[in-house]
Amino acid sequence: MNHSEIMIIGGGPAGMVAAGTCRQYYPEKKITVIKKDEKSLVPCGIPYVFGPYLESPEDDMIPCGNRAAKMGVELIHDEVVEIDFDNKVARGRNGSRYGYEKLIIATGSIPKKPTSIENYDADGVFYVPKDPDYILRMHSRVKAMEHVAVIGTGFIGVEIAGELARSGKKVDLVGSRILKHAFDPEFSEQMESIMLHDNITFHKEKKTTRIRVDDEGRAGGIELHDGTLIPCDGVIMATGYVPNTEMAKKSGLSMRRYDTIYVDEYMRTTESDVFAVGDCAEKRHFITKRTVPIMLASTATAEARIAAANLYNINIIKTFSGTIDIFSTVVGNTCFASAGITEEDARKEFITIESSTIVSDDKHPSKLPNNHKQTVKLVALKRSGTVIGAQIIGGIDAGEMINILAVIIENKMSVFDLLNLQVATHPLLTSAPTAYPIVQAAQNLVAKRIGEL
Amino acid sequence: MNHSEIMIIGGGPAGMVAAGTCRQYYPEKKITVIKKDEKSLVPCGIPYVFGPYLESPEDDMIPCGNRAAKMGVELIHDEVVEIDFDNKVARGRNGSRYGYEKLIIATGSIPKKPTSIENYDADGVFYVPKDPDYILRMHSRVKAMEHVAVIGTGFIGVEIAGELARSGKKVDLVGSRILKHAFDPEFSEQMESIMLHDNITFHKEKKTTRIRVDDEGRAGGIELHDGTLIPCDGVIMATGYVPNTEMAKKSGLSMRRYDTIYVDEYMRTTESDVFAVGDCAEKRHFITKRTVPIMLASTATAEARIAAANLYNINIIKTFSGTIDIFSTVVGNTCFASAGITEEDARKEFITIESSTIVSDDKHPSKLPNNHKQTVKLVALKRSGTVIGAQIIGGIDAGEMINILAVIIENKMSVFDLLNLQVATHPLLTSAPTAYPIVQAAQNLVAKRIGEL
Repeated sequence: MNHSEIMIIGGGPAGMVAAGTCRQYYPEKKITVIKKDEKSLVPCGIPYVFGPYLESPEDDMIPCGNRAAKMGVELIHDEVVEIDFDNKVARGRNGSRYGYEKLIIATGSIPKKPTSIENYDADGVFYVPKDPDYILRMHSRVKAMEHVAVIGTGFIGVEIAGELARSGKKVDLVGSRILKHAFDPEFSEQMESIMLHDNITFHKEKKTTRIRVDDEGRAGGIELHDGTLIPCDGVIMATGYVPNTEMAKKSGLSMRRYDTIYVDEYMRTTESDVFAVGDCAEKRHFITKRTVPIMLASTATAEARIAAANLYNINIIKTFSGTIDIFSTVVGNTCFASAGITEEDARKEFITIESSTIVSDDKHPSKLPNNHKQTVKLVALKRSGTVIGAQIIGGIDAGEMINILAVIIENKMSVFDLLNLQVATHPLLTSAPTAYPIVQAAQNLVAKRIGEL
Repeated sequence: MNHSEIMIIGGGPAGMVAAGTCRQYYPEKKITVIKKDEKSLVPCGIPYVFGPYLESPEDDMIPCGNRAAKMGVELIHDEVVEIDFDNKVARGRNGSRYGYEKLIIATGSIPKKPTSIENYDADGVFYVPKDPDYILRMHSRVKAMEHVAVIGTGFIGVEIAGELARSGKKVDLVGSRILKHAFDPEFSEQMESIMLHDNITFHKEKKTTRIRVDDEGRAGGIELHDGTLIPCDGVIMATGYVPNTEMAKKSGLSMRRYDTIYVDEYMRTTESDVFAVGDCAEKRHFITKRTVPIMLASTATAEARIAAANLYNINIIKTFSGTIDIFSTVVGNTCFASAGITEEDARKEFITIESSTIVSDDKHPSKLPNNHKQTVKLVALKRSGTVIGAQIIGGIDAGEMINILAVIIENKMSVFDLLNLQVATHPLLTSAPTAYPIVQAAQNLVAKRIGEL
């Protein structure tokens, strides 16, 4: 039996960061990572293997073997099918047995299949798993297609649709409004108008009911609930992900909503010496405190670092009291980014809020080259002024600007605090100090008499 | 006599933000701004009027009249030469008298002249004041020159040298190491090597002793302390700024070190109903608590907002307990940014610190287009792990990334807190979540056993 002091199941971002962090903190321990595939894809890079930027999925792959060897971590290619928590032994697909002292489960997530769509699993219908071999096969078939239907308007659907269109394919995108969980309607509309310029036909607020298949059972079109028929060469289903937790559940771990593994603030499960991190572990929302199906590599890696730090003793407290949903993406040449709760979702959750939106430039004076309009929306609690959400449309730098808001939200800063914000501004890099939009939006909220009882 | 409820002396960033903020909070009050020039230059944009990006200084000008009119603020072109605080009346250059109920002094700063350099004020020697007429005249003369000597290696000197070189001029730059107050030596060296590629001859750690003048008294070269003679068509002195506070001092305001006006946390001076904000007001350092000669438009505007909010009653507490020096600039196509104290300055001030530097990519996978190396250095207190400084070299987005660090420093977050940082990452916008350099540098500091007593 292979025995490790620290064993990690899963080699995605959470698993590999857990391994690296453990190596840094516990230089003498034997650390093993058990993962299914020899290579790993950079998960958020997958949409870009379908576009002009990367030549092939190989460009999006991480040589896990090299990385593990460099870290001094043993890498085993196997799939754990059951864990005996009492005896601290995991069993692999072919019967191999792996003993552990401390176990971190990081089995990630897998595509959710929309079983209500007829022929959802036909030939020519593709999902977007983080499985290198699947993506390689899918890539070579999609490459040969001229017309692709993409179902789902979350990040993966929108990004793949954009990349396929950029590669010259005809694309039909079907779903609700664009990125509705991360953005308010007025932001979605701006994305939608950019996507139209990119030659994507968008079927907004439409439901797919059936995949049309030919005599050989191959997908050749999709049917919408209003009867519209869209012929196409293939279908990509970007219909979300579910935690990959069947094995954990079968082995007896205590579970929570959305098939997530129960974890406490230190990422400990109900079994002693067993931790869970990343998409497979429960996430609670920083405001509503509800269990939420948010899956983010950045959150996953933060959890991995917390688990690693507290594996043997409690050393470092998790400072965030809930998951902040933080996203960024690029549509055309414009960056859309969001942190925390949207105005729409806040109202749905009966949170008493006020919002303000500022449009400025991201260079000053605005005649400098590469100036991009910059829109910042702040959402704050009406009584306390605490910032709980933000959305940005801007140039490439909005991708880091949203992280300023992430830290602001994490520190429970109020719009009053933001009036004082000390920031660096520069003509070629940011908006003017007199008009810095985060501060300006905060000031508008203060002027709206936010916080007055 | 012209009488205002709120009177602001100075129309730079601090003065105009004070006016706009007062208008927002006190819609009924009569607000007047007294300023010398009809137009204003965007101060940090001045170096760029000497480069290829902007056609002329006009492109860097703000039509203050329009802006004031739009805000409903009266704009008077005059220079206040004395204030009678007892009778609450200011006197203009031609004897006009201006009464006020509340006064905000925002007179800014003016170039410091290096009187130890012989002929420092000769014809053909230019300074860089925020004076539109001066800059217009200077611009037309500098434009005709082929070879310019720039003295001073702070932001203005480095940026002007870069822009002149980009415009095809031969440039000699003289001073200490590049941007030594904002960056550690290894960062300066990277800037220096980029500047060399840009055809700037850099005379490092050299002192200018004399401006050579011809028979008509016109500058034709500079002499260094080691005897080197550099012929040139003109000289630009970027030798720093001093607060423009002679009038305030003469009128009897209590002053502090570096000729700054004493202010408390609400920006109140020693005279009742008189506030001072921006470069003319005292700044204390957030760590050393010493009075420091830091001049930043972003700090100035934050102070203006605080003064405006607390003009009649205390409403909003200044949340920052000292000025954080935050800078960003672009050298070649690389952004250099800094927040808080450098390692070198920390050691000079006997602050017990530890530092860590991480190099990563700002896209992931790194094969994506426009990938730029990203270097992040964190400086933290060795005992508590509190982050007190950061430096970044990267692409354009480093200009906003440094503001994440600014908020981290302002919130007194520790490297332990940073392990938990929830950030948005995206292939086309940021480094990988597994390698996000702020978090990775924090983790290295934790692994270095920072915080252990």
